[in-house]
Amino acid sequence: MPELRKDPVTGRWVIIATDRARRPSDFRREPVRIHGLPVCPFCPGQEQKTPPEILAYRNGSPANSPGWSLRVVPNKFPALRVEENLDRTGEGLYDKMNGVGAHEVIIESPDHQSTLAALPEKQIEELFWAFRDRILDLRNDRRFRYILVFKNHGEAAGASLEHTHSQLIAMPVVPKFVQEEIDGARRYYEFKERCIFCDILRQEAAVGERIILETDSFAVIAPYAPRFPFETWILPRRHGSHFESAEPPEVQDLARVVRLLLRKIDKVLESPAYNFVLHSAPVQEGSMTYYHWHMEVIPKLSKVAGFEWGTGFYINPTSPEESARYLREARLV
Amino acid sequence: MPELRKDPVTGRWVIIATDRARRPSDFRREPVRIHGLPVCPFCPGQEQKTPPEILAYRNGSPANSPGWSLRVVPNKFPALRVEENLDRTGEGLYDKMNGVGAHEVIIESPDHQSTLAALPEKQIEELFWAFRDRILDLRNDRRFRYILVFKNHGEAAGASLEHTHSQLIAMPVVPKFVQEEIDGARRYYEFKERCIFCDILRQEAAVGERIILETDSFAVIAPYAPRFPFETWILPRRHGSHFESAEPPEVQDLARVVRLLLRKIDKVLESPAYNFVLHSAPVQEGSMTYYHWHMEVIPKLSKVAGFEWGTGFYINPTSPEESARYLREARLV
Repeated sequence: MPELRKDPVTGRWVIIATDRARRPSDFRREPVRIHGLPVCPFCPGQEQKTPPEILAYRNGSPANSPGWSLRVVPNKFPALRVEENLDRTGEGLYDKMNGVGAHEVIIESPDHQSTLAALPEKQIEELFWAFRDRILDLRNDRRFRYILVFKNHGEAAGASLEHTHSQLIAMPVVPKFVQEEIDGARRYYEFKERCIFCDILRQEAAVGERIILETDSFAVIAPYAPRFPFETWILPRRHGSHFESAEPPEVQDLARVVRLLLRKIDKVLESPAYNFVLHSAPVQEGSMTYYHWHMEVIPKLSKVAGFEWGTGFYINPTSPEESARYLREARLV
Repeated sequence: MPELRKDPVTGRWVIIATDRARRPSDFRREPVRIHGLPVCPFCPGQEQKTPPEILAYRNGSPANSPGWSLRVVPNKFPALRVEENLDRTGEGLYDKMNGVGAHEVIIESPDHQSTLAALPEKQIEELFWAFRDRILDLRNDRRFRYILVFKNHGEAAGASLEHTHSQLIAMPVVPKFVQEEIDGARRYYEFKERCIFCDILRQEAAVGERIILETDSFAVIAPYAPRFPFETWILPRRHGSHFESAEPPEVQDLARVVRLLLRKIDKVLESPAYNFVLHSAPVQEGSMTYYHWHMEVIPKLSKVAGFEWGTGFYINPTSPEESARYLREARLV
């Protein structure tokens, strides 16, 4: 019997269509493979092929030359651009503003052949420090209300270059899904005087069946009402609304957790394309008691998405209890 | 310079990234081709391979036998099922209900080789009459609050069988995007005392640059803040909140408009996969002054969607003025 489940934060209903139950092997997909390229603009020695770097972690070598372990550059085809004025104007009943913002690429490693999951823990930690450094810098620009940090891994998930990288977009508006999450969490807080994500952490720990892994600082769960098969959330145990306020031991532990989770996903789902998105509070706002930063990881397992796009109504053929069990039980060598 | 535009109904901001401007030929995609199958459950003579029909337009032949021009059957793998009780229950802080609903398939033609765009106008009109007949029947079941009518054309848009068909899901909740549209339209009405869709129709007719085609009863436009390249809306000129209240001349004209639009899309974009979704008011509600039924057609042109899924933030590389011009100017032989 299919079941309708409500996401407690956003209020979105999803259908868990257990009659169509899909195990990992039932998804048709192409594993992400790194082919290598004659010339890759993200490889060491090709630094002149990107716009000049904004940030790099390197051992004393000069800017825009080899010797880096991580490098942040402006996107060559930015979705938004840093301009002088943020003009909001009308066009009859419509509203628009010029595309003010920043769009940056974080090159996660000099190694073209690696994936994020295959990098050493230390290198993944650097990635999260880079996210933090860039957020702390960009939030000084008061025009930027939200900084979206995300990764597209594999062509099916929207990556146009295979050399492992993440992206960051600083924008003058708060994206709709983020605002809905914040509004939903606020409504819960007004009613209960507790953070909904803290309550989710407590309930999931007690129930156990949707837990994928737990560490000192994080719990990784399959959410109760997932939109997609094998959708996964990484929740910090300590309440905090802004990722950039995470403490050093948390950033270290996050690197460990992300590496473990991605390796489990690679094993169970045979190296699928995936997206991750960092959900964090708007950068110009102070600390919030009702919002709780977290990361969402969504493997791209099926093409069957056009309908969902058009309606916001999701039919998920794999229950979170099933997907959590597969990922929890996956043993890494 | 990229531009941020706000959808006037839902308040969603999108980036129109004109720097990445994409003309029709810039999209990589596979044209939808009909291959034919040795045995297709939707073909005449195979009626026993589907569950018994709910509705068929036929010339006197008995039910579940050949001789039909259109046939409606329950989905063999329904996302929701008609059951006796609609139980809403809690699970700690979570909410769920059993998957009560109906999931039907509308087989649009006995001809396996045809597509909806290639069908005669009369046959397309039958499709819209079938939607209406099924909605009028299903809304008698008071548990069904919303009836979602949609089509996935082509594998890339989620179609699992190539024989041309649409789908209908009757559900006990209103999908999130629909509710947001209704709420947004209501807010506009409270402020202006006018229907926002009627205002959009007036403004688009005056401006002209986003108009694709106009008939007595409909205007087809590229919306001001489209999420996807070549996203298209079909708006009835006469205000009405429920599709099922459309009058016979409107249904006739809709068939003509949909056929023209799909043929233009096939020509300009080389027979892409696409989705359409009928946006209509919740079936248990009376006529609404502030909501206006319409159809949305979304060609599936790019894979670059994982990020958008996760954030609700859309980067569209083709402006609606461009896409409207291509579709408006496409001449059909």
